Amino acid sequence: MTDLVHDLRAALGESAVLTDPADMAAYVTDWTGVFTGTALAVVRPASTAEVATVVRLCAAAGVAVVPQGGNTGLVGGGVPDSGGDQVVLSLSRMRRIREVDPVADTLIVEAGAPLATVQEAAAAAGRLFPLSLGSEGSCTIGGTIATNAGGTAVLRYGMMRELVLGLEVVLPDGRVWDGLRPLRKDNTGYDLKQLFIGSEGTLGVVTAGVLRLLPATPRRATAFVALESVSAATALLPLLREHGGGQLTTWELLGRQALDLVLAHLPGVRDPFAGQHEWYGLVELAGTSADVDERLESALEAAASQGLLVDAVVAGSPAQRESLWALREGVSEAQKSEGATLKHDVTLPITALSRFVAEAGPALLAALPGLRLVTYGHIGDGNLHYNLSAPVGDDAALRREAPRLTRMIYDAVTALGGSISAEHGIGALKRDAAAAYKTGVEVDLLRAVKQAIDPRGLMNPGKMLA
Amino acid sequence: MTDLVHDLRAALGESAVLTDPADMAAYVTDWTGVFTGTALAVVRPASTAEVATVVRLCAAAGVAVVPQGGNTGLVGGGVPDSGGDQVVLSLSRMRRIREVDPVADTLIVEAGAPLATVQEAAAAAGRLFPLSLGSEGSCTIGGTIATNAGGTAVLRYGMMRELVLGLEVVLPDGRVWDGLRPLRKDNTGYDLKQLFIGSEGTLGVVTAGVLRLLPATPRRATAFVALESVSAATALLPLLREHGGGQLTTWELLGRQALDLVLAHLPGVRDPFAGQHEWYGLVELAGTSADVDERLESALEAAASQGLLVDAVVAGSPAQRESLWALREGVSEAQKSEGATLKHDVTLPITALSRFVAEAGPALLAALPGLRLVTYGHIGDGNLHYNLSAPVGDDAALRREAPRLTRMIYDAVTALGGSISAEHGIGALKRDAAAAYKTGVEVDLLRAVKQAIDPRGLMNPGKMLA
Repeated sequence: MTDLVHDLRAALGESAVLTDPADMAAYVTDWTGVFTGTALAVVRPASTAEVATVVRLCAAAGVAVVPQGGNTGLVGGGVPDSGGDQVVLSLSRMRRIREVDPVADTLIVEAGAPLATVQEAAAAAGRLFPLSLGSEGSCTIGGTIATNAGGTAVLRYGMMRELVLGLEVVLPDGRVWDGLRPLRKDNTGYDLKQLFIGSEGTLGVVTAGVLRLLPATPRRATAFVALESVSAATALLPLLREHGGGQLTTWELLGRQALDLVLAHLPGVRDPFAGQHEWYGLVELAGTSADVDERLESALEAAASQGLLVDAVVAGSPAQRESLWALREGVSEAQKSEGATLKHDVTLPITALSRFVAEAGPALLAALPGLRLVTYGHIGDGNLHYNLSAPVGDDAALRREAPRLTRMIYDAVTALGGSISAEHGIGALKRDAAAAYKTGVEVDLLRAVKQAIDPRGLMNPGKMLA
Repeated sequence: MTDLVHDLRAALGESAVLTDPADMAAYVTDWTGVFTGTALAVVRPASTAEVATVVRLCAAAGVAVVPQGGNTGLVGGGVPDSGGDQVVLSLSRMRRIREVDPVADTLIVEAGAPLATVQEAAAAAGRLFPLSLGSEGSCTIGGTIATNAGGTAVLRYGMMRELVLGLEVVLPDGRVWDGLRPLRKDNTGYDLKQLFIGSEGTLGVVTAGVLRLLPATPRRATAFVALESVSAATALLPLLREHGGGQLTTWELLGRQALDLVLAHLPGVRDPFAGQHEWYGLVELAGTSADVDERLESALEAAASQGLLVDAVVAGSPAQRESLWALREGVSEAQKSEGATLKHDVTLPITALSRFVAEAGPALLAALPGLRLVTYGHIGDGNLHYNLSAPVGDDAALRREAPRLTRMIYDAVTALGGSISAEHGIGALKRDAAAAYKTGVEVDLLRAVKQAIDPRGLMNPGKMLA
């Protein structure tokens, strides 16, 4: 083991290999604070060749590698286990944007570049990179690729998978697969990049990607609406699409209790409505002209005339838009101030969302009276952040009942044809649950892929699948 | 072998198992007529369970299975080899549309349904299924999935891969993988469906898919334009995108010799321009309002003012639109009337297209004087159908020089970062070439995937990869 550290230092230089626990601390505990481990070393290579060297040396020593981007994951996928014999490979020094091509509408970027840097480079070229997440300032492109990140614009632009044209990957044996092709059409075999997108570092280390750029949409029209039910929210979707004319970008849902937490804990926010409502939605269209305002207006009118809308506030300025978005984006932060939480990131078929909420809620409240249902999410693509907060003053009850409550939720999601992980991934947190809710055929296929690409099991072991 | 035929008849019924050479003829020769083989039997199962039975029985007998859709492929991927010991599994009886959901914007369809049937079902629900190909009346959905089909709307909507949400697949051992999920977000492991999309039947048999529907675009604005060069065509792309505002659907290229063939051989077509030009483009915007006409108009004005356009004709009626499209769609048919052909379906990075055409053309003409360059394609996504017609009256010369000419083209494409198969796939035709132009690392990865999913090599052996 010390030989490996010695070899890593010889290859990368002293400063690129951290072994002091204080230096390693930020790399071995995840953003949630729930997942923490210890590492043999944290290495910070500066180039693809150096990543390949690290992986090759680790493979030769039989040491596992845990790739890490911005360490903003929520499922413990990017931190080492407690054994102390894994090497954390941080991509944080590989931040270069290698190329921006506004004719081909592509951008080539190294894995360690923050998502926000890519958004800014696209904007500087008059284009849009549409992936948008709460953590975009610190999460890395490599991380968004390895976890197939989602966010608030998936309804229009898809997940990260749909925005990647090519990849460069260091394979488990240290060889480099150069799949950095900027081609929209390339039918010359299995689409290998798809294996690595969303693989959570279990098949190799993504070192760079070719991303798609899209037309800039500087003009935005945003409204916060009050709704009677989740079924009104899903019934609104086709209407918003129809009036949106391809410019509908975001359709988010917020339950009353989620809004209450934001109003209670976040400074400077206020309820946009005089009365209280059960559900709220945030809708946004984006485009290049005042067309988006007209389209939003006509969508809201149609919704009101069909009785799908109780009330609505349209943002009249960028500042008002910010304040409406703050209500939606503040939930996660606000929930931290209300005691213990238990979070679920699930997708349901759009038409099953209403039934899920109607059935799961009462069942959970019966199982733990006083439980608070903090429901919100990206309803336009079926993704609910179905979070729970402990009964007031009784965190212990939530912790005690957590496994049972989660099982109830996952059972209900699965019975309705949904998924127990929409966008946060599996990591360590959901590894066993994911396997338990899959068919044997599917688990066999997943294991066959892992075995084919990483037969020695040295890439991020213990994550995603057992 | 006769035992297997007996077992297949016992399981599926007499009429579902063809063994008479006359009955099998349509299934063992491909659409081009170039690829022909013989089969032990052609089986036509009527359900997923029957497909599973066929695959299981074949696996037990150690007999290879060749899945087949509409048999419209161009690379010999769907017909058996000449050994006479393979079973052709035709999906042609599985044509059911299982579900259309206009709220979730999804459609579930069995593999044997023709693409046009799906387009019509989407239209009947007021939605659009955007994949559009010359063979759409007879090609099947299963075939478009297994080959990751492209066509004339990829610029806007992407390849088939981007339109598939879920799959049902019979695996090489006869087990069924039920991945028929309608979810836009589902991060619970490797995205297994991606393995089967574009796998050309080498990993399993796609029996059904969940497809995405999109907003209908009944209003179309179409123009045929004359251009001085390929570089003008690529320089026009960002301009068309900018003015198109997300409604740009098609940007096609046509060389002079391609148009000449169409004018010479297709009845009822005429040159829309008085003078002759080197290159032509077909541009189409699609949307819901007259907005598309205004956008096309402003794009053409901007193009003219920047000197990127020599002349333009805008379709003033659906009939005029048809006649402009006929010029583009007639090339393949027209080329048949001009002696021997040698076809190449390649992609280049957009910015390299002009250089490729400028360099490859003279080199090919030097290698075979009198050769006719019939160049056309989907320039908006970098895809050229770079076809050759024999010198007048000298088919033998083209046949003699074919390997050398193809090698020159593939070398040039590869040197410029392109792909030797954009949308037609590999099949039998390009199997060895595809391997030759890939790195050893990539070939190893492809083989590892094949070995993982089909370790006995019984799914469409000899196709796509050796």
